[in-house]
Amino acid sequence: MSQRRSFVKQIALGSAALALPNILLPRKKERLGVALVGLGYYSTDLLAPALQLTQHCTLRGIVTGSPEKAARWQKQYGIPEKNIYDYQNFDRIADNPDIDVVYIVLPPMLHREFTNRAARAGKHIWCEKPMALTAAECKDMIGVCRDNRVRLAIGYRMQHEPITREIIGYGREKTFGQIKLISVADGYFDGRADHWKQKRRMGGGAMFDMGVYALNAARYVTGEEPFAVTAQEHTTRPEIYSEADETTLFQLEFPSGALANCATSLGMNMNYLHVTAEKGSYQLEPFQSYSGIRGSTSRGKVLDQSVPNQQARQMDDDALAILNDTPLLVPGEEGWRDIRVVEAIHRSAFEGRRVRID
Amino acid sequence: MSQRRSFVKQIALGSAALALPNILLPRKKERLGVALVGLGYYSTDLLAPALQLTQHCTLRGIVTGSPEKAARWQKQYGIPEKNIYDYQNFDRIADNPDIDVVYIVLPPMLHREFTNRAARAGKHIWCEKPMALTAAECKDMIGVCRDNRVRLAIGYRMQHEPITREIIGYGREKTFGQIKLISVADGYFDGRADHWKQKRRMGGGAMFDMGVYALNAARYVTGEEPFAVTAQEHTTRPEIYSEADETTLFQLEFPSGALANCATSLGMNMNYLHVTAEKGSYQLEPFQSYSGIRGSTSRGKVLDQSVPNQQARQMDDDALAILNDTPLLVPGEEGWRDIRVVEAIHRSAFEGRRVRID
Repeated sequence: MSQRRSFVKQIALGSAALALPNILLPRKKERLGVALVGLGYYSTDLLAPALQLTQHCTLRGIVTGSPEKAARWQKQYGIPEKNIYDYQNFDRIADNPDIDVVYIVLPPMLHREFTNRAARAGKHIWCEKPMALTAAECKDMIGVCRDNRVRLAIGYRMQHEPITREIIGYGREKTFGQIKLISVADGYFDGRADHWKQKRRMGGGAMFDMGVYALNAARYVTGEEPFAVTAQEHTTRPEIYSEADETTLFQLEFPSGALANCATSLGMNMNYLHVTAEKGSYQLEPFQSYSGIRGSTSRGKVLDQSVPNQQARQMDDDALAILNDTPLLVPGEEGWRDIRVVEAIHRSAFEGRRVRID
Repeated sequence: MSQRRSFVKQIALGSAALALPNILLPRKKERLGVALVGLGYYSTDLLAPALQLTQHCTLRGIVTGSPEKAARWQKQYGIPEKNIYDYQNFDRIADNPDIDVVYIVLPPMLHREFTNRAARAGKHIWCEKPMALTAAECKDMIGVCRDNRVRLAIGYRMQHEPITREIIGYGREKTFGQIKLISVADGYFDGRADHWKQKRRMGGGAMFDMGVYALNAARYVTGEEPFAVTAQEHTTRPEIYSEADETTLFQLEFPSGALANCATSLGMNMNYLHVTAEKGSYQLEPFQSYSGIRGSTSRGKVLDQSVPNQQARQMDDDALAILNDTPLLVPGEEGWRDIRVVEAIHRSAFEGRRVRID
């Protein structure tokens, strides 16, 4: 192959830029500095290790109320003293150019406060699910981020996961025709009695904790917004689940006529998604676990090509969207769309009747 | 092996009877004479061929309103003229010793009438599902059969199917611990517009036609009777399903705390059963089709050892129960238990609220 043809081929492959000296490219950050707010299980065991696997993020800061945790993380991840905050002095992060993104991993009752404080500090925000306790809180968060010109992504990692993206594509492209029925169930047995997950006013209960994944799945599988819901709450441990729901069943109605039969629980281990469409079906089990997503279609296709680390994929996707100023895969509006349905689900269960969603 | 040892072994295997001359055994019928009432699709394509495969049944009679069908069946199956009845002269079957069992394969609105007429004619009865339109009708049928000392079995073939029996055993023996949640869905796309299956007063609609299988499955999987139900009816073809339900979602509550999330439809093809238990899960897809029942457990067991013909197994089981005077696997009471729940499902959907089942 001649040198000229080789060069042409490089351009055709879109890799020409790699062949040019770096000084010809505009200077651009390649990695965003991330600060984790709240150093519980999810930050400790999943996000911090995942950050080490990202290509476009670096763990640069932490926000914690625990000096012991601060010391441990500082040592483990080489975080400079100046990048460690507590919940009182957190707002000073505005003056810290090391931090581009604040990832909020606090109990849901604190999501609005810390999202809004981070936005006012000029930082982009990644916020865990459920986005907040009410749709009004979500709207407020979206508005504050918009006003402060920062991006807001919700931590629904499944929407970044390749098998999930494949089935989202089935719905969008009508690969199996019109979607008719979704059965989805997720839950785990939570043996704790006095964690915030057992307190609804803190954002606990099955629906807030796990149910939003089932709901989100019904929405991303159909690509539609439900207009009505019927829901029932149940408990086998009333002494623990006096306030929050241990188990919720909910049924969604979509404009196309598609229906979803959903279950979520903190009292049983389950994780599956089954989609019935006009010309076939597909299912994943598990559909939402941290690894091992796996399924099949009625056409005999095995769905097992996932990613080594879901959280790393999610954070890299979101970092690239910020670096390149492209749309986020799961913006704040996506969290709001779920929470407005969750409000209707809570109301339906309380009132014992079908609730329309405006 | 000595002859003596061989003989002992035969006795140990329970096969000694086979070695004895027949004249030493009490004379007993080996096959029951069966008359099919109603020669629609299910009799024509499934029951009549299945009867040829049974070991304890013989197709000896037919009851039909169509002389053309009578002639065709007479020829195809060698049915004597005297064993052919129409709906008017059917009661004369009382005088026909060829017929031991009358299998009622009519639209559900006719099940009570023909069950009771057959009982008064002194014949045992196999009646297709749904047993009848109301729980009161079912009770009446059970009473008339009892008064006339005839047996009444309901044609829930799945309860005879080996894989289904295996999962019934899982519940009974708590193989996977307490059952927590069942997701079950069955349906098919029915393109017809004016069949009786689109007329609720004739026993049509998804719940009567397919939903009873899902309901029956929730009951046989748990081995419990539901005490409350919430249900929603939906249609995408209101011009056809103005009276009967095209699609029904229903949620059952069982005394143990187990829940069932069920869907049934005449507007979509689906057939699956998923069981979440305390220590694992198992699923079948399909769980209710005429063949190909298949599934797996969370412990890696593949469930695929079914029978060549479900209807033959069902009829042989029921014939043996009658010949040996042993309990029927699916007696009339089992049909009644479903129909009382179906009544509650219809009421819940109509009233838009949870209904307790007394």
